[in-house]
Amino acid sequence: MLPIAIDVMSGDSDPREYVAGALRALLEDPQLRATLVGDPQLIGTLLGPQSAAVRARTTVAAASQVVTMDEKPREAIRHKKDSSMRVAVDLVRNGSAAACVSAGNTGALTAIAHFVLKTLAGVERAAIISAIPAAHGHTHMLDLGANTKATPEQLRQFAAMGAIIARDVYGVAAPRIGLLNIGEEDMKGHEVVQAAHQLVAASGLNYVGFVEGDDIFSGDVDVVVTDGFTGNVALKTMEGVAGLIADRLRQEFQASFLASLAGAIARPVLRRAAAGLDPRRYNGACMVGLTGIVVKSHGRADGVAFARAIGTAALAARRGLTEHIAQALQAQGTA
Amino acid sequence: MLPIAIDVMSGDSDPREYVAGALRALLEDPQLRATLVGDPQLIGTLLGPQSAAVRARTTVAAASQVVTMDEKPREAIRHKKDSSMRVAVDLVRNGSAAACVSAGNTGALTAIAHFVLKTLAGVERAAIISAIPAAHGHTHMLDLGANTKATPEQLRQFAAMGAIIARDVYGVAAPRIGLLNIGEEDMKGHEVVQAAHQLVAASGLNYVGFVEGDDIFSGDVDVVVTDGFTGNVALKTMEGVAGLIADRLRQEFQASFLASLAGAIARPVLRRAAAGLDPRRYNGACMVGLTGIVVKSHGRADGVAFARAIGTAALAARRGLTEHIAQALQAQGTA
Repeated sequence: MLPIAIDVMSGDSDPREYVAGALRALLEDPQLRATLVGDPQLIGTLLGPQSAAVRARTTVAAASQVVTMDEKPREAIRHKKDSSMRVAVDLVRNGSAAACVSAGNTGALTAIAHFVLKTLAGVERAAIISAIPAAHGHTHMLDLGANTKATPEQLRQFAAMGAIIARDVYGVAAPRIGLLNIGEEDMKGHEVVQAAHQLVAASGLNYVGFVEGDDIFSGDVDVVVTDGFTGNVALKTMEGVAGLIADRLRQEFQASFLASLAGAIARPVLRRAAAGLDPRRYNGACMVGLTGIVVKSHGRADGVAFARAIGTAALAARRGLTEHIAQALQAQGTA
Repeated sequence: MLPIAIDVMSGDSDPREYVAGALRALLEDPQLRATLVGDPQLIGTLLGPQSAAVRARTTVAAASQVVTMDEKPREAIRHKKDSSMRVAVDLVRNGSAAACVSAGNTGALTAIAHFVLKTLAGVERAAIISAIPAAHGHTHMLDLGANTKATPEQLRQFAAMGAIIARDVYGVAAPRIGLLNIGEEDMKGHEVVQAAHQLVAASGLNYVGFVEGDDIFSGDVDVVVTDGFTGNVALKTMEGVAGLIADRLRQEFQASFLASLAGAIARPVLRRAAAGLDPRRYNGACMVGLTGIVVKSHGRADGVAFARAIGTAALAARRGLTEHIAQALQAQGTA
């Protein structure tokens, strides 16, 4: 496999954290090769002390600019042509990388990815998809924020791509597709979800109909389709609730001597429960529908989380994500 | 205070559960009076064994119909004029009840409430607001699903009503208002939130700007404003995540003999942590912006949760929710 191009400069965390994540990913996956994109001096200093085996699988691509977290997408395209984000996407475009990963500004990354890579035939807009922990394992949800809205036809395309990813990348046979709404009855919701409901129902997908926010976790559906505004709010809401619950547990287990004793006894069990739900384990959302693979990491990712995003990119590349989507859409077009 | 009109027939639970909730609310609040609306024979049978003190504070209003959970709002208005839901709202309209509570179909309840009670001057659409547990206590969030979309002006009205409720009903001095979006930077989001951002910023409210889904719980904001589609998805997502985490904890504490021993020791602490986050404690969302108080209970509420919704209605009535909103909007209109 070609190397993964890794933007180590963009995001809320220090570039050192992203480089540490890349090194962790290289140690975890002996087949992985990486191209670290950014300030060559900084990267060189951090690579210096690494083992020869790791350095042999690592190359550096210099980039003199950084896209900031509040940069307007259009400005990023026009004025940041030598940014680490742009160079990483360019490496995918010109066939030098199997995929790219960035923790930078979602709006700028979406704009640059569309501008450089273009969408596949039959796809109007790319969408961001991620695995979300659920009662039966995982639910795959899209769009998590590539777009601020979606037309009914775009929602149908998201449904088709979600089904392919669940099946061909994650091995879910006949994935059940649900359209996110505020009620399960057919007449509920606004005109966009109503029209999308008709389109998806007629698409030949294994469509279960409207689902609600709690169904993301229920195990009754494998792919949840929504627009990027609603999807991003739902994703951030999940993070917020999980954080609040973790804080409350911590506070209660520190509230008294007896509670802290109980906490010490319960800790291994709590750790096991938390491990399966750790948001860092789910870091790395794929931007799908483009001619190449772009993975968006959480902006505040630490090394552990960033390594997971790189792992997601490697999995998507190995499973031939782009080819599967392109073939499936072509098959639909000629059917 | 006038009695609270309680629709004991509508919702996913058995009417007996709602009657049990009403009786629980009467026991918890010795000043409360209730008018139970529904099948008089069923209600009479359930009231029979109660103490004379509870029966003295309870009246029955007969209703021969029930609005079903999948009933279209328009049909409910036209053909269910003697439904428990409609009779309960009518009791508020004609001054016989201080507020009404229903666990029925949100769409039908919203439509009937607008049709019978009408909105206050300066309010285009009522919104559903509820307290959500957060790091600093509670965040008040609206709209949680009365409307499937909202114009920028309606979002401004929701912000104004949310501020009044946080201040005058819940005692938050100078509540901080945030507009839900998919990024905190000024240029993020679609045109509706962009336009609402300008309107709320110019409104004289204590506006902190855009907030994201995780900020609902962060303690950095007191009132989160959004449209009813996004708000409802966020609310159901919270329920889903909390349920998933509770299930995982339960599974891990049952996974082995040692784990169940640790669970027995940790149980009192886990119970205390769970109590503060129990969704039943937060049941009862107010529909605000109408000439009377309407409280929506979760459809699957049990007696404990339904009693809480009745408590929310009583609190809103005692604090003069409707009058506070009407006065504040009038003051704005003449300012």
